[in-house]
Amino acid sequence: MKKILVLNGPNINMLGIREKNVYGTATYEDLCEMIRAKAAELKLEVEIRQSNSEGQLVDWIQECYGRMDGIIMNPGAYTHYSVAVLDALKAVCSRGSYQQYPPAGGFPPSLCDDSGLYRPDLRPGSEGILVGTGIFCVILFP
Amino acid sequence: MKKILVLNGPNINMLGIREKNVYGTATYEDLCEMIRAKAAELKLEVEIRQSNSEGQLVDWIQECYGRMDGIIMNPGAYTHYSVAVLDALKAVCSRGSYQQYPPAGGFPPSLCDDSGLYRPDLRPGSEGILVGTGIFCVILFP
Amino acid sequence: MKKILVLNGPNINMLGIREKNVYGTATYEDLCEMIRAKAAELKLEVEIRQSNSEGQLVDWIQECYGRMDGIIMNPGAYTHYSVAVLDALKAVCSRGSYQQYPPAGGFPPSLCDDSGLYRPDLRPGSEGILVGTGIFCVILFP
Repeated sequence: MKKILVLNGPNINMLGIREKNVYGTATYEDLCEMIRAKAAELKLEVEIRQSNSEGQLVDWIQECYGRMDGIIMNPGAYTHYSVAVLDALKAVCSRGSYQQYPPAGGFPPSLCDDSGLYRPDLRPGSEGILVGTGIFCVILFP
Repeated sequence: MKKILVLNGPNINMLGIREKNVYGTATYEDLCEMIRAKAAELKLEVEIRQSNSEGQLVDWIQECYGRMDGIIMNPGAYTHYSVAVLDALKAVCSRGSYQQYPPAGGFPPSLCDDSGLYRPDLRPGSEGILVGTGIFCVILFP
Repeated sequence: MKKILVLNGPNINMLGIREKNVYGTATYEDLCEMIRAKAAELKLEVEIRQSNSEGQLVDWIQECYGRMDGIIMNPGAYTHYSVAVLDALKAVCSRGSYQQYPPAGGFPPSLCDDSGLYRPDLRPGSEGILVGTGIFCVILFP
């Protein structure tokens, strides 16, 4: 059975409390239940972790090397600036892609939301997206 | 008695050591004494914490939910880039505002200092600023 | 004997595993051996540490104050955005320089690499560079 690490970044644990008008009323525990149910259906073994710390997330990604079959990650706020998370994913992932670097001159407005914040163009690998609700970005590696 | 968390970010603990020409000779302990004195005067219960870790600061902000009456924070360097801290504040704060997102195309030079670094336009909530020396930015929530 | 802290940032511990086409096949342990050999030759006492956590790196830089004679640091990904690391270095370093702040309007393309990522113009202090392979940036202080 394939082993997958599901990694949730900062403030994902506040789902159901945090800005309900944006993120809805489902709680973090609801999300975990949803993931476990989907994993059972797909016959995948999942391990779910959450941290607010960029360094902790990098540690966990590194620990996957040679131990897990894939990572599904929602880096939360770190999506917008964590080159450290990106480097860690690139270090352990042999498949999948992940675009995060800001181009010189800043992001084109077409890639930004109304408040001017960059919304990254996530290009998951050819393995596809396991849970594709807009909550997740996906990196898969063998 | 209202309970307030005073949260100091990275390198604030180096006051009195750090670039004295910019930050002065008062130490971090002096700052804490000043805060405690002001809190006693205002009949507020304060808890003062400092961390260099973005993740730790996010943890502490989250812990305030349903437990504290307000947060006064000086995010230090994280003012400039921590979307994680901003998201945490937005998750637990029902009042107050906090502007940090860089607009597409970068910050206008008028908001930047001589070295080109963005100095955020902090717009504290209508509850006002408890200690307004330029050291603090303020988020208040009920 | 002068005491030097050698500080390695995120993912440096993945050398030899991480993107071998970019970073080569030498491992992190090889790097540490190289540093120890060079230090012995130069009659320097070195302490080598690595962390993926920005906050941990800031803690360690601060602890050098009054205790170490110099810091040699490769901030890894944090080179690109950690104002917290920069502030910590400026707090404890009386010599050496370190340029990291993005200018208003973003970095000129001439300072960016092909993928548009800023490659900082590191200007080490007049004490010079101990190990200058492109892996290290150097901050020295008395």
